[in-house]
Amino acid sequence: MFKQNGAAQHPIAELGGSATTLSPQELDNIDAYWRAANYLSVGQIYLFDNPLLSRPLQLSDVKHMLLGHWGTTPGQNFIYAHLNRVINKYDLDMIYVSGPGHGGPAVVANTYLEGSYSEIYPNISQNTAGLQKLFLQFSFPGGIPSHASPECPGSIHEGGELGYSLSHAFGAVFDNPELIVACVVGDGEAETGPLATAWHGNKFVNPVNDGAVLPILHLNGYKISNPTLLARISRVELEQLLRGYGWTPYFVEGDDPVLMHEAMAATLDQVIEQIKHIQLQARQQHEVSRPRWPMIVLASPKGWTGPKVVDGLQIEGTFRAHQVPLSDPAKHPGHLKLLEDWLRSYRPEQLFDAQGRLKPELAALAPKGNRRMGANPHANGGILLRDLIMPDFRDYAEQVPQPGSPGVGDVHVLGPFLRDVAKFNLEQRNFRVFGPDETLSNGLEALFQVSNRQWDAALQENDEFLAPAGRVVDSMLSEHQCEGWLEGYLLTGRHGIFNCYEAFIHIIDSMFNQHAKWLKVTAELPWRRKIASLNYLLASHVWRQDHNGFTHQDPGFIDHVVNKKAEIVRVYLPPDANCLLSVMDHCLRSRHYVNLVIAGKHPAPQWLSMEAAVLHCTQGIGIWEWAGNAENLEADLIMACCGDVPTLETLAAVAILREHLPEIKIRVVNVVDLMKLQPPREHPHGLPDQDFDDLFSKDKPVIFAFHAYPWLIHRLTYRRTNHANIHVRGYKEEGTITTPFDMTVLNDLDRFHLAIDAIDRLPQTGGKGVTLKQQLQNKLVEHKQYIDKHGTDMPEIRNWVWTQAVSGATT
Amino acid sequence: MFKQNGAAQHPIAELGGSATTLSPQELDNIDAYWRAANYLSVGQIYLFDNPLLSRPLQLSDVKHMLLGHWGTTPGQNFIYAHLNRVINKYDLDMIYVSGPGHGGPAVVANTYLEGSYSEIYPNISQNTAGLQKLFLQFSFPGGIPSHASPECPGSIHEGGELGYSLSHAFGAVFDNPELIVACVVGDGEAETGPLATAWHGNKFVNPVNDGAVLPILHLNGYKISNPTLLARISRVELEQLLRGYGWTPYFVEGDDPVLMHEAMAATLDQVIEQIKHIQLQARQQHEVSRPRWPMIVLASPKGWTGPKVVDGLQIEGTFRAHQVPLSDPAKHPGHLKLLEDWLRSYRPEQLFDAQGRLKPELAALAPKGNRRMGANPHANGGILLRDLIMPDFRDYAEQVPQPGSPGVGDVHVLGPFLRDVAKFNLEQRNFRVFGPDETLSNGLEALFQVSNRQWDAALQENDEFLAPAGRVVDSMLSEHQCEGWLEGYLLTGRHGIFNCYEAFIHIIDSMFNQHAKWLKVTAELPWRRKIASLNYLLASHVWRQDHNGFTHQDPGFIDHVVNKKAEIVRVYLPPDANCLLSVMDHCLRSRHYVNLVIAGKHPAPQWLSMEAAVLHCTQGIGIWEWAGNAENLEADLIMACCGDVPTLETLAAVAILREHLPEIKIRVVNVVDLMKLQPPREHPHGLPDQDFDDLFSKDKPVIFAFHAYPWLIHRLTYRRTNHANIHVRGYKEEGTITTPFDMTVLNDLDRFHLAIDAIDRLPQTGGKGVTLKQQLQNKLVEHKQYIDKHGTDMPEIRNWVWTQAVSGATT
Repeated sequence: MFKQNGAAQHPIAELGGSATTLSPQELDNIDAYWRAANYLSVGQIYLFDNPLLSRPLQLSDVKHMLLGHWGTTPGQNFIYAHLNRVINKYDLDMIYVSGPGHGGPAVVANTYLEGSYSEIYPNISQNTAGLQKLFLQFSFPGGIPSHASPECPGSIHEGGELGYSLSHAFGAVFDNPELIVACVVGDGEAETGPLATAWHGNKFVNPVNDGAVLPILHLNGYKISNPTLLARISRVELEQLLRGYGWTPYFVEGDDPVLMHEAMAATLDQVIEQIKHIQLQARQQHEVSRPRWPMIVLASPKGWTGPKVVDGLQIEGTFRAHQVPLSDPAKHPGHLKLLEDWLRSYRPEQLFDAQGRLKPELAALAPKGNRRMGANPHANGGILLRDLIMPDFRDYAEQVPQPGSPGVGDVHVLGPFLRDVAKFNLEQRNFRVFGPDETLSNGLEALFQVSNRQWDAALQENDEFLAPAGRVVDSMLSEHQCEGWLEGYLLTGRHGIFNCYEAFIHIIDSMFNQHAKWLKVTAELPWRRKIASLNYLLASHVWRQDHNGFTHQDPGFIDHVVNKKAEIVRVYLPPDANCLLSVMDHCLRSRHYVNLVIAGKHPAPQWLSMEAAVLHCTQGIGIWEWAGNAENLEADLIMACCGDVPTLETLAAVAILREHLPEIKIRVVNVVDLMKLQPPREHPHGLPDQDFDDLFSKDKPVIFAFHAYPWLIHRLTYRRTNHANIHVRGYKEEGTITTPFDMTVLNDLDRFHLAIDAIDRLPQTGGKGVTLKQQLQNKLVEHKQYIDKHGTDMPEIRNWVWTQAVSGATT
Repeated sequence: MFKQNGAAQHPIAELGGSATTLSPQELDNIDAYWRAANYLSVGQIYLFDNPLLSRPLQLSDVKHMLLGHWGTTPGQNFIYAHLNRVINKYDLDMIYVSGPGHGGPAVVANTYLEGSYSEIYPNISQNTAGLQKLFLQFSFPGGIPSHASPECPGSIHEGGELGYSLSHAFGAVFDNPELIVACVVGDGEAETGPLATAWHGNKFVNPVNDGAVLPILHLNGYKISNPTLLARISRVELEQLLRGYGWTPYFVEGDDPVLMHEAMAATLDQVIEQIKHIQLQARQQHEVSRPRWPMIVLASPKGWTGPKVVDGLQIEGTFRAHQVPLSDPAKHPGHLKLLEDWLRSYRPEQLFDAQGRLKPELAALAPKGNRRMGANPHANGGILLRDLIMPDFRDYAEQVPQPGSPGVGDVHVLGPFLRDVAKFNLEQRNFRVFGPDETLSNGLEALFQVSNRQWDAALQENDEFLAPAGRVVDSMLSEHQCEGWLEGYLLTGRHGIFNCYEAFIHIIDSMFNQHAKWLKVTAELPWRRKIASLNYLLASHVWRQDHNGFTHQDPGFIDHVVNKKAEIVRVYLPPDANCLLSVMDHCLRSRHYVNLVIAGKHPAPQWLSMEAAVLHCTQGIGIWEWAGNAENLEADLIMACCGDVPTLETLAAVAILREHLPEIKIRVVNVVDLMKLQPPREHPHGLPDQDFDDLFSKDKPVIFAFHAYPWLIHRLTYRRTNHANIHVRGYKEEGTITTPFDMTVLNDLDRFHLAIDAIDRLPQTGGKGVTLKQQLQNKLVEHKQYIDKHGTDMPEIRNWVWTQAVSGATT
């Protein structure tokens, strides 16, 4: 039942006498190497002791709780062994991305066999004691996960949540012309949306400046309990699909190991030579048409070489091979024998010596040094990370002769700075800006002064800024690809930004989760070097989606981000252009964070000179003395704000209050670094309680105008002394097609509501307060009437300037 | 420049004399109808007054602020006009899904032309006054959005966030055998992940019991500022791609209206007949092989019939036609003339009479009554909604002779109830369960006793529960499709559940957002009838992902959901099986909500008899007298819990405290309905402050064990009297491969930490408290030692029972 094939059983002559890629010896060797990896994989899933089967298997040798995923593993072991061969043959710089879920046993087994695992984890040594530990640790409490997790050398992709392998692979090869990423795509994973569109990444890879992605679609037929779609359409349809995606697929299909070894070897030689030919044509012959890159479809049985039938049920080649084929030997005594037969079918005595070391002739098959996929520095990108050459952001300052000076749109000021970051690092080629067709819409047009959009599909006249190479990758309408490409780019040691509409960044909520989890875990692994931060720039934000309407209004990504580990996440809401410059400079220099930056793109008043902005952003939160009138006195009222629109409305409200109730002493506090609000025990940026009290007082009313959902401020400040007096306004899911100012009114965040909120908490204003409140309520009524009357043809009122703010005009 | 074609200019003879689908008169009419829709579309984008151009166009006739999207509009008008023709010809029951973003002008124009718009909005009447209002309201403050928004009759799909059109279309045709959904897919939208995999929906449609989706890929070449991928690959590749997806594509390509009318008409006849043939074969000839459904690729210029060149720049057929081609007539006087020429090129005087009514011979072209796509009841699903025939959930009760009785896993108890919901409604065919290959993994195996998984791809031996028809749709590994299909199913008046792993439901965060927004807006439209709620069942939750590890642990979907309107969202965390039954019964009967239900699948102790569970769930929150010892006395301590695992750990902690510190009076509060915690002014379920104070006291310590991120409880309760004394434990992003109990320890949610938290807040326990705390800390040390020593081979400790809970044993 468990007869494992190999050259000894299947003379090479059976292949028909034609010239073969593998000599009989090579075939024999590669099959033995594969059997070794399979043996180690089954060992990881099952064995508690007796790792070399030096005595008959007993129940006490088997783990009590069996966890792990066998189904995908032998196929991945097969691929890995064959990749090793071509790495040696062609001296390839290659890394391995394991897309299928829970493929952990395969990558752990192979990095152990090649030695890279033991170099990082010396206690998992290459001998019997190490083997036992290797088996014990797998998918068990205190041990390692069942995916290609951060703990596994050679991995930049976990495979816990499915769908992102190809995107990561493409991100890794951008600007890495010598790199080939072998990306195993599971046929389950292939059904996800992100993966289904990721195949189109081949229209964005430039064969001159970028490396190559070699997708290997592992068609093993089943998911957890269902067949896969791609395995249940005809091969004709599948080939059409892959050709339609722009690939040249090569099929390696079967279950006879001998035939499969030869087929895989021949195919891999062919595709590697084709990749090299494409690159040569482009690099030396300047061929410019989009190449049809090769890919492989490996159709092999799920759970290949494992139990065929157990208790009368077919296992190999069915969904039942997905996890643990023999699930409870303790209760099914016959299963113990089956397990032993299965393990012995790999003939471990031929693979390992008595000390548990892989036999030298097999160990020799692995690549050497950094050519080993578990030791390739691209898969531990921090090693290769080079600092960006940074222009001085102060040189891009917006002139702000006085607070309220007109601005051109904060992101438009940032653009030239990013342009020069791109320009200064053109030679290093380690900076890119990603976005879903929104670089212009998000106000970063300056980038196109020094670079184009990378685009390798057809060009036509009237196209703008499209070219085979460029620092901007924004021509695909897929947030998933932008995120996945950027992650792959960062994980291999480069820098970048993802610019996106605020509402639609939720599309990649779950990808952010996984990246943040990856950062948390890798930060705790000393051998993993820190990588550049993932920087989000959300420039088309909730308050200026009045023209696109309700579907485009959602500021909840902040809430999502701050649920992740405080050590990893940072959130910035610069109130004007100079603050944005300062913040972005900081983000691009930071390491191993996720930085979320939210800024406006529409013309808006500016508040701080560059000098003041640097000071303010360095502190992250501070009093704007010039805006309030409390000076050094104790304030009667704190007007706090976070975000560009809330800052404008707050300052306008303060102007109203100061004009009409000058005796009220107002302190204006602006927040750039949102995490300053949390206590320091919750977030490393957190303001000490004493400092918080100094800003927000211990007992005075605080009116807090916030960019996003108001309750987030409460969640961050609930332990602060004065929390009970903090009254927050923010977005509360009200909005439609209207004016920008009306957006704030609909959500009670406008100047009038804020001033009324203040008066309501200042009984000492007496009759004057009551009168002013009445006037402000009238203003709101007038505004409503104006909208009702002129709503369908209201003049443009986007350009609120400081003079209007202080006058409190409605329109 | 603006010569609009038509039969008059292009005699039908030019087509070469071959037999044509359209007679010259029909061609003339359909072209006129199309011109009318185009005229109305341009009018919506531009005109403030002078809607019929009854006098020369003046600047004052033009809106000040020009917003809207011309690019996609003429193509959609073309499609709509031709669909009208085949609806009439074949008496089709058809609805229209407008996938491309911002296609609002087209659907509004067409529903206005066919009369359905004015029936719903009588003030937008079919005369000059109505025309003027129609133009004024578009994409302007107080008016209507620029997408196919909820306000637009005939729409079940907004098109604000791109990617979900095809999924909605498939959801709509499930169990609607006579329905055809014409689904226009934008070539920009086609690049998104969700859309790229949605094409595979054709493997889940059964030609006997389901209707047909007719995708129309609108290849108009450009997104906002980039070309589209599908327009820049060869037609050969595109055809391969679509055939690979399993479709038979028909190309209608060109820019000459006459030729295009004939081509579209002939093609539509062909595809409709093909659809009918497929259905006939399946329904009468019992053909069982998967059909290759037809689809159309309409390749037409972006901004077709609009300005060709403006200021020397090509507009028609480029990305510049995406939004407003003539953007500022006020500043460019020449543009006013261009605009007038453009409008007059449609010859409005031939289309509308002097009173602004569409000429009778054109009005006659629209379908009648409910055959009009704007009046089809499927697009206002509440009209068709039939209540589910419900079994009595009490009949499925788990027997709970005493609190702490062993359970089999709460979802496994729910399964038979859902099985019978499916069974009782087999005839109505209006209930389905969706999931990404997880129905078994989520414990709903009972469903397969009465139904199969619907699957129309190939079958093989060893498949389980796969069949051409079934109530379960779980064979595609795409959360996006599950969500989109269920939304489409609900929006057309049926019922359903989406079961999913808790961590990975974040994949559809953004789709949830859009559906919640749709529900909010439609709830405010009196003509929109309420639909069944969208029910999420998250059964593989954070606390039991100890074996899958950190990537599978994320309870943040609750945070995401509660950011949406309180009127729409409901969150339930039933602590045991009987509560889960009661909650799910309620959810399936509810309307127009999103219900989020989180429940466990592993064996766990049960607490409430069915009678007690019904009472508890009806109240949503309550004191568990039997668990505490405060009886009617004032409590010294409140131990609160929400979620199955937190409830178990809380009860265990209470048992420890009661045993060792019996003089402390403890009240146990359990929360099923999370929104009870909010004040009633924030959520309709909110508990009045007095009731809250009665439960949680005004000044006693509260230890709150919560299923998800702890700060959410603070965000919900920060205005409550006793908030300062509420101490919350929950998931804080700690976890790996470990034991279920260690998961709680790593996050300080275990019984020992909870009891220590209580002692820390009960100084009156004095020396006894100090001693107990020391003992509990020792327990934690022992636990850690146990994990460190045995971690890699720890026995199964999933089955915590009440007796263990009260003994406080660690393992």
